[in-house]
This record gives sequence, C-alpha cells and structure tokens, in this order.
Amino acid sequence: MSKLKNDLFLRACRKEPIERTPIWIMRQAGRYLQEYKKVREKADFITMCQTPELAAEVTIQPVDIIGVDAAIIFSDILVVPQAMGMEFQMIESKGPVFPQPIRNEDDARNLKDVDPEKNLRYVLDAVSLAKKELDGRVPLIGFAGSPWTLLTYMVEGRGSKNFTYVKKMIYNNPKLAHSILDKLATAVAKYLSAKIDAGVNAVQIFDTWGGILSPSDFEEFSLRYISQVISEIKRKEEPVIVFSKGVHHSLDKLSSTGADVIGLDWTMNLDEVRKKIGRKVALQGNLDPTVLYAGENKIREEAKKVLDSYGEGSGHIFNLGHGILPDVDPEMAKALVQIVKEESRVFHGKNAEILGQ
Amino acid sequence: MSKLKNDLFLRACRKEPIERTPIWIMRQAGRYLQEYKKVREKADFITMCQTPELAAEVTIQPVDIIGVDAAIIFSDILVVPQAMGMEFQMIESKGPVFPQPIRNEDDARNLKDVDPEKNLRYVLDAVSLAKKELDGRVPLIGFAGSPWTLLTYMVEGRGSKNFTYVKKMIYNNPKLAHSILDKLATAVAKYLSAKIDAGVNAVQIFDTWGGILSPSDFEEFSLRYISQVISEIKRKEEPVIVFSKGVHHSLDKLSSTGADVIGLDWTMNLDEVRKKIGRKVALQGNLDPTVLYAGENKIREEAKKVLDSYGEGSGHIFNLGHGILPDVDPEMAKALVQIVKEESRVFHGKNAEILGQ
Repeated sequence: MSKLKNDLFLRACRKEPIERTPIWIMRQAGRYLQEYKKVREKADFITMCQTPELAAEVTIQPVDIIGVDAAIIFSDILVVPQAMGMEFQMIESKGPVFPQPIRNEDDARNLKDVDPEKNLRYVLDAVSLAKKELDGRVPLIGFAGSPWTLLTYMVEGRGSKNFTYVKKMIYNNPKLAHSILDKLATAVAKYLSAKIDAGVNAVQIFDTWGGILSPSDFEEFSLRYISQVISEIKRKEEPVIVFSKGVHHSLDKLSSTGADVIGLDWTMNLDEVRKKIGRKVALQGNLDPTVLYAGENKIREEAKKVLDSYGEGSGHIFNLGHGILPDVDPEMAKALVQIVKEESRVFHGKNAEILGQ
Repeated sequence: MSKLKNDLFLRACRKEPIERTPIWIMRQAGRYLQEYKKVREKADFITMCQTPELAAEVTIQPVDIIGVDAAIIFSDILVVPQAMGMEFQMIESKGPVFPQPIRNEDDARNLKDVDPEKNLRYVLDAVSLAKKELDGRVPLIGFAGSPWTLLTYMVEGRGSKNFTYVKKMIYNNPKLAHSILDKLATAVAKYLSAKIDAGVNAVQIFDTWGGILSPSDFEEFSLRYISQVISEIKRKEEPVIVFSKGVHHSLDKLSSTGADVIGLDWTMNLDEVRKKIGRKVALQGNLDPTVLYAGENKIREEAKKVLDSYGEGSGHIFNLGHGILPDVDPEMAKALVQIVKEESRVFHGKNAEILGQ
C-alpha cells in the first residue's frame, strides 16, 4: 500500500481522511479515446481482452491522458461465462452474443467450473503487467459481473429489452436459476480472489441488470449471490465496490452485504443515500454521463452539485452514474477530472491544507 | 357518473369505499390479443389510430375478453407532435420514427399550435364512439404523453439508448427545450380537456422517460410541465393519473402536482410509497409485466404480494408496472384479472360483504 504515490481512491473507500475527492470513470478505457481506438484497430475486442500487452496498454491510457485517480483493468464481465465453456462473440452492431444461450437443465449441465489460474490466466497476466507499468502511480481496480447480471446475458444470449427468457426462468424454473447462480457466485469469487492475488488494489462487482427485478426478486436472485461472492472473496484489505444500477429500493440491504463502497446511478440523491447508509459504506458516483455532452461551465456546475450533495468529509469517490459514452469529447472527460480535483478540496477542510496534494 | 354499471376504478381513484380492487392493464388493447391482431391486419397502426371505428373496436376488446374494470382509448402519445405538424411513421422493426426531428430553433419554429377539435378530431370521435359502445359498462380513460416524454421522441426522432440529442439540448440550449416544453404543455392540456369534453372519465399522463433524468433535471424539465398540464386541464371530477416510470426519487413532488393517482413501476414497494404519499393520492400498479410469463399459481402468488403490499382500504388500482408485453398469453392476462377480483375482496372488509359485487 505504502508504495502507491496516489492512494486517495483507497483512502476514500475506507473513509480515511483525504485532501480532495478522488475520481475515476466507469469505462474510462474505452472508445471515446482516440488512443484506445488506435489499439482497437489492431485487434478485435476479445483479442484485446486476451492479450495482456494490449489490455494493460489501454488500462493505463486514461491515467496518462485523463488524469484519473485509479485505473481499472481492461476486460469484459463476460469472460467468466466464456471460461465456463460458453462460446462468446462481440458483434459490433449487436454487442455481446452467446450463440448457444442457457435455457434449460441440459444447456446448464455443460457449464464448467472455473479455475482462474488456468482459464482466465490472460486477465491475471494483464493485471500483473498493468501493475508493473503503473509503477504505483494510482491503484488498480479489478472487476466482475454479479451472478445475476451474468445469468441474464447467458440466458438471453444477446441484448434484450424485456429479458423474456431469464424472467421465464426465474418464474417457471427457479431451481435451475438458483443452481446456475450458485455456480456463478463461486466462479466470480474465485476470479476476484485471483485478481487480488495478481495485484489489484480493489474490486468492483457490476450488477448492471439488478434494476430490472422487483425488490423481492432482486433479493432472491441478485442480492443473495452478491453477498455470497463478497463473503467468499479472499482478501486482506482490498475494498469491494458494488455497483447495482437502478436498485434504489434495496440500498440498505446492499450496504449490509459486506461491500465497502456502493456505486450509485445518477437518479439517486447522494445526500439522501448518505443519510441512509453512509455510516456503513462509502459512496461512488453519480454524475449523469450525458452531462459530458455539455460545455465546461455546465460540467463544473453539475460536478459541484454532486460534490455538494455528498458534502464534507471522506467516503465519496467521484464517478459517473454509468459508463462514459463513446461519443463524448475526451477533452470534456479531462475537464471533469480537473474540475473535481479543484472543486473538491473545500469539502475536505483541514486535510486539504495540511496534506496539500 | 351514476350511469356507470361498474365505477370501481373511479371510486378507487378518489379513495372512496370499494368492495374489491379494480384492475386495468397498460397497453391492454394490444398485440397480445388475437382479436387485436385481426383488426391490425386490415389497417396499419396510424390508420387504426385515425379511424374511430377501428380505435373504438380495439378499445373495447379487453373489456369483453379480459374483463378489466376500465377501458383506455386506443391511440398513441405521438399523435400530439403529429398534430403539431411533425411527420410521424410507425415502422414495424424500429417503432415510432420522426424523419425530421427537432434539433434547433429553426426546426422548432415550424411546430404549430394544436386545436384538438380540428387536428385531433379523430381521437375525440373515437372517444365518443367507444363511450357509446361501452354503454356504461366500465369507465373510459383518455391519455397523453408528458411534455418531457414527447420532447424526447421529437428530438431523438427514433428509439434511443442514451438520449444523446435531447440531453444535449437541455444542457446546451435549455431555453429552446423550455420553449418547446411550454408549447407541449399547452397542447397536452388542451388535448386532455377535449377528451374529457368528448366523454372520458379519467385521464392518464404517461411520463415514460422521466426516469432518464437526474432528480434536479427531472424537476426542471419534466415535473414542472406535468404540473402545468394538470393545472390547465379543464375538468369537473375526472381523476388525473400520472405514470412516471423510474422516478423513485420524486414521488412526494409528483403527489403535489394535483394528480389524483400516481402510477408506479414494479421496482417500487407499494407499502413504502403508500406511507410516503398515500394520504394525498391513490396508487396504481405495479406487478412486474414479465410475471405474466409464469403459470397461474405464480401469478396468483405475485398478485397477492402486490395487493398485500398496498394493504387494506381504498386507493389502489391494480395494474402492471409497465405495458403488457406482446408475447404474453392472453389466458394469463385473463387469469390475472380474475385473481385480482377474487383475492382483493379481503382488503376491503365490510364493504365487500355489504355491496357484494
């Protein structure tokens, strides 16, 4: 830990004193960057994920170019079902596709247990390489999809509007859903533990599709397995972040999963959420990603609103409320990072003056 | 009012005593019904909207076939921008399309004021005809899109994931957005007033895209104009329902717009919402639409959960948390209506025994 030159992000996760609010951006290693697109021209998306040199290169780009306070290893949540034996394609116009989705017991029987050291070696190698190249400048985050979110993709097979197949499964064959979710929870916990062993300083669980469930279904099919993953992760002091999009109804329960940080989308009021669960966990978020379509003045105004909403003291990691959009001007992302660095000092009182970073 | 044989829906809107909970289903006149599809074979979607005989016919189908306690006039929220002069197409694979979206002052200048008696005569005629054919069996609901939701379609021009253009407009040219929203609020209020004059017993404002905004943007760009519409509707005792999808953060403010009923999506806990705003307004909703993919036992279990969540007494109108899906088995919709009729009596105590309907 002591080797990190900038550990603001990790201190904020633990609500230790900080001199300013740290910022990173979901999907910061992505298509809005020219430098990313240049790498992407050389290799398709899956090849990029599977080639440690390329994955490490794009992981570090936003640290150099945008100035964020944490890197997140470039990868995809769907490498886990792929490692379980599912054929996985990334089709430019459609997004991720599983040509043979899981719809019944027979399909599920073919899912293999995951041994990250073997099946996901390339991610661990990318982590080691990125760590080395970062050279302690900022912490490195590892991530995985929540079991529920992975199940959604595995059952639907492709982008979905109404999530017909996975909803049919939980209502008409909940036993099958639970058996796959349990398998996924074990795989995800092993995978995140292996990433920690390989050197990541924190992990984030993306529950992208938690918000399509009713509160009671969320508890049964998503929350339960997030808790299982967190309890099975082997870690020392690496914080766990849970980002559960649209799950406004179960924040209190999310804060009791063992997570250190809860990520929030832009429909949540940070001040209200802090009052509710801010004593138990740190909060991450939550600027509307489309604010980056605006000019610098508007971005400053909106970023200040977010900072002001959380208020004084540690425990806030600035981020967007969802991934950065591909058509955002990178200069505006850069401006946001600079704005947060400047405007957040006043929320950290004496620390800002003493530590003066 | 006295002429209605079944006015449960209207009494529930006003929180007057009822003997059982009324039910209707958003998009109940729709593609899941064979009988609807037969009419649809004869005419395209827009022609159906514009032909009072066809619109009235499909409006009444779910009353006959499914047994709902209210009819809602078959139409589309986008007839209003169409009446303002925008060319509107319904393309099977893409949904609604405006080939010339509104992106700047010049585009907006061409928007005409709406005179419903002239430009939307066909909807008013459909209302009169449906009323006549319903012959007082159940109340008839009229509807419109909220100004914000209409603006979203008019600016995007077609289905959107990130709502790039409308977000750019509110951040970079809020003055233009407000001027169109103001025009839309006037048009929507006039349109709903004309529908009331033509005979509808209640109106619903669909704020389908309110949930894509942050709480403060929602207040500025959607809530304000919903309030304006409600205050300008000329009505006697016809209730106003507001369905604002995903707007968990501003329920209290929604309940102060003058609305009589707030519609809720399936991510809300009815019991919590009732505690918060149930003294001011009635609540409508909120079964997850995908529950209708399940069998009758599961549907009963989930419907009872919704009834139980609202609890005893009047002020609840049963509905799905969003429109019924096109691939739902109509037998399951029928089963749901029957289940709600049976299972809801216990929540209305003495009234059920006395009135015995």
